[in-house]
Amino acid sequence: MSENSSSPIKPVQMNQVSNWDFETDVAIVGFGGAGSCAAIEASDAGAEVILFEASSDSGGSTALSSAEIYMGGNGGTRVQKACGYDDSSEDMFNYLMAAAGPQADEAKIRAYVEGSVDHFNWLVSKGIEFKDTEYKQRAIMSMTDDCLLYTGSEKAWPFRELAKPCPRGHNLYIEGDNGGPLFMKIMTENVHKNGVQVEFETRALSLIVDDQGAVAGLVVRQNREEKYVRARKGVVLCAGGFIMNEAMVKRFAPFLLAGNSPIGNPGDTGSGILMGMGVGAAAINMHEGFITLPYYPPSSLTYGIFVNDLGRRYINEDCYHGRVGYFSVAQESKRIFLVFSAEDFQDYQTNSYLGAEVAGTGDTIEELEGELGLPAGSLVDTVQEYNRFAAEGKDPAFNKSAEWLKPITAPFAALDCTPGRGVFVPVFTLGGLDTLPSGEVLDLEGKAIAGLYAAGRTTAGIPRRGQGYSSGMSVGDATFFGRMAGKAAAAN
Amino acid sequence: MSENSSSPIKPVQMNQVSNWDFETDVAIVGFGGAGSCAAIEASDAGAEVILFEASSDSGGSTALSSAEIYMGGNGGTRVQKACGYDDSSEDMFNYLMAAAGPQADEAKIRAYVEGSVDHFNWLVSKGIEFKDTEYKQRAIMSMTDDCLLYTGSEKAWPFRELAKPCPRGHNLYIEGDNGGPLFMKIMTENVHKNGVQVEFETRALSLIVDDQGAVAGLVVRQNREEKYVRARKGVVLCAGGFIMNEAMVKRFAPFLLAGNSPIGNPGDTGSGILMGMGVGAAAINMHEGFITLPYYPPSSLTYGIFVNDLGRRYINEDCYHGRVGYFSVAQESKRIFLVFSAEDFQDYQTNSYLGAEVAGTGDTIEELEGELGLPAGSLVDTVQEYNRFAAEGKDPAFNKSAEWLKPITAPFAALDCTPGRGVFVPVFTLGGLDTLPSGEVLDLEGKAIAGLYAAGRTTAGIPRRGQGYSSGMSVGDATFFGRMAGKAAAAN
Repeated sequence: MSENSSSPIKPVQMNQVSNWDFETDVAIVGFGGAGSCAAIEASDAGAEVILFEASSDSGGSTALSSAEIYMGGNGGTRVQKACGYDDSSEDMFNYLMAAAGPQADEAKIRAYVEGSVDHFNWLVSKGIEFKDTEYKQRAIMSMTDDCLLYTGSEKAWPFRELAKPCPRGHNLYIEGDNGGPLFMKIMTENVHKNGVQVEFETRALSLIVDDQGAVAGLVVRQNREEKYVRARKGVVLCAGGFIMNEAMVKRFAPFLLAGNSPIGNPGDTGSGILMGMGVGAAAINMHEGFITLPYYPPSSLTYGIFVNDLGRRYINEDCYHGRVGYFSVAQESKRIFLVFSAEDFQDYQTNSYLGAEVAGTGDTIEELEGELGLPAGSLVDTVQEYNRFAAEGKDPAFNKSAEWLKPITAPFAALDCTPGRGVFVPVFTLGGLDTLPSGEVLDLEGKAIAGLYAAGRTTAGIPRRGQGYSSGMSVGDATFFGRMAGKAAAAN
Repeated sequence: MSENSSSPIKPVQMNQVSNWDFETDVAIVGFGGAGSCAAIEASDAGAEVILFEASSDSGGSTALSSAEIYMGGNGGTRVQKACGYDDSSEDMFNYLMAAAGPQADEAKIRAYVEGSVDHFNWLVSKGIEFKDTEYKQRAIMSMTDDCLLYTGSEKAWPFRELAKPCPRGHNLYIEGDNGGPLFMKIMTENVHKNGVQVEFETRALSLIVDDQGAVAGLVVRQNREEKYVRARKGVVLCAGGFIMNEAMVKRFAPFLLAGNSPIGNPGDTGSGILMGMGVGAAAINMHEGFITLPYYPPSSLTYGIFVNDLGRRYINEDCYHGRVGYFSVAQESKRIFLVFSAEDFQDYQTNSYLGAEVAGTGDTIEELEGELGLPAGSLVDTVQEYNRFAAEGKDPAFNKSAEWLKPITAPFAALDCTPGRGVFVPVFTLGGLDTLPSGEVLDLEGKAIAGLYAAGRTTAGIPRRGQGYSSGMSVGDATFFGRMAGKAAAAN
């Protein structure tokens, strides 16, 4: 066989393959959220499917997540309706477009919104349960079995002016942060029920292309042997992102190196993206990622203010933590502090994810300012102005919502939220293969590559910017477009 | 011939080429700043060189620029020394690293700094003249024949704290904005003097690769015929960036669509980048570009303040216009205004590049605030605080330098600097092929592709961020690394 067969980048020529170890209609790489949904849809459509997974079990990064799923529009999902929300597709569309900013993929967002309630119903039909209740706290995830919650910046400026706010995060019917494993357990059952052949501990090495450059199969490594997979209808790459590949992050998304806690599974090495690029696919949005300071719980810290080393605010603190985190990391500042009334510290020490140290305290802001080493008068001015307006429920500087405005009062305290100083900075990638809503992978000229599909974080999907992220966008995107890719491959 | 030979992306296999129309050691694509310097160095090293240029004359985007060249360090260039600056390599290195931020290519910056005075001397040896004088105004370019000027944010916070400021922009010895054509005239003379064969009106179509994937030549179109070029030592891609390729900008750098005036020549279609990617090269930093609001001259407008539609400042206005422009375009704001004392309007109407309309005037800030439609009290608060500190030569909020601080006084005026409302927003790309300091092009695994070199805006070079740009970085980078690529190809 070709000496290049072990490189993910260099495809193997089909005419060099002497025999097939596996033959199927659709070969899927990666048994996470995207891959499982692709397998279910492809097999539901009558295709023969083999799913290849490098690790010993299903799950991928979806199983490690909370598996909140971002859904709505179309008048609302069953849960949204039960909770009194008649979410419009226009509002959901406008929110997602604003969240993705100039990088928005309008066609994908349109498809995602239009299919969103169908997607909810499909998940329910596959056995995923959602409780018809709302989790009303400002939280990163539901800590009960309640379903519906705000998981982004929908209620925060400027988004609230661009789209009527509505909660769209759907948490599974299970106590606490256990949605991911449950989601993957149910999806895995469906995959098996559908008769999909699953090959665990089998790593995809490279694609196989025919004379015309169409993808015809896959080389995998199983039991220390290279095996050849013929995929008559197509290969679907659902192999995750690249946050575990430090060299690739450094090269394509160096801003994300400010993060210290890669969120993902060990397989998120970018191999799916590289395999795609190796057959001519375009990778886009490669610089972007989710990078955050998860500064709540306790939600009471939202009453505080983030300041840089000039003692100045830079964001409305009621945004989703991912947006606050993005702008915090992007500050030209040696230090980032969260300044708050000590009473709002609450259960920080037992329930916070942040891990930030108390950087200073004071009975006066002058005292705190000194302890933080901020320029004389800087924090005093900032807090004075903030308090003056907060007392009236206003924040003319950054439009923080009245709900989270109250004067900061003595005794005062501050957390050191500077990345690199002990604080937890989770991070994952948002760049990948450019795909159509159908999951077809596009080449550098914008044409679909025959026989190649992708979904999940192997692609650039709905979420395109750390500053516009909402929890549930990635699992939502992976599962929705995983289904589309499975359908399209089966119909090829 | 292969039906794919007319695609820039799909390389032609060498074994399908039946005869060579041109044979040479080094084939260079593009006769701008990078290509001319590559050709001179390669031929100086004894290599046979053919230079292919799609248009009818030399020049590229360098001829359209001011051809300021960013040079210094090593104790200073001849001009820096004559003007009393003993520029240190460490300061130049630190400035360039800070300017490029997380995207910095340390090895390239190191090579560029260490070779910078040599580069100055080399240019002089080739006939480029620089006058030993300084242009002391805050300006986008020297409007006299004076040479040395600040062309970036060296004196502005935070850079001034990270590296001792020093002017490094070197303007050619010619009155006004005429450096680009003069630079290319002299470089073109050198190319001819060196006996380099030049083929004008000859478009590079695709690379030719051998069985091992090494680049062996080039397909070009000349007189409506495809011709085959054998390059024994290598091909050097100096074909510019991709700002003229709207589809490519939309796909890879959508933020730049906020610009309305692409800076470049019609050949900046990304063809060099695509040719490289087609043989497996990695393209990096593709989302970035230079995007600006050139709001001076008159430099007196630097005494003004930029505010968003909350009536709040967001930047120290004494930064280079490219940095102010970047942060202005990045604001989540429907409108951007430059507010100033009417006396600082000066010769705006005859000498400004900006083209911004006067959005409002007032004998009081309240009146101006109303005319601009800003929230009641917002601009009043901002100007009050700004003036209070400016009177003391301080700007605790954004650290604008004392040199540009004075209270804003009646009568007041504001310019509408919102992109999309008539204002001039020049833009070009800063992403491209990943190369070594030698110009060798790297593949997706980080290995050099045999026979392939690149320089100029076909590559990701020294300038990596709009927010960190200094005039002269791009021509500096193109000419310096053009030379390195020419040398390396000749030595291959």
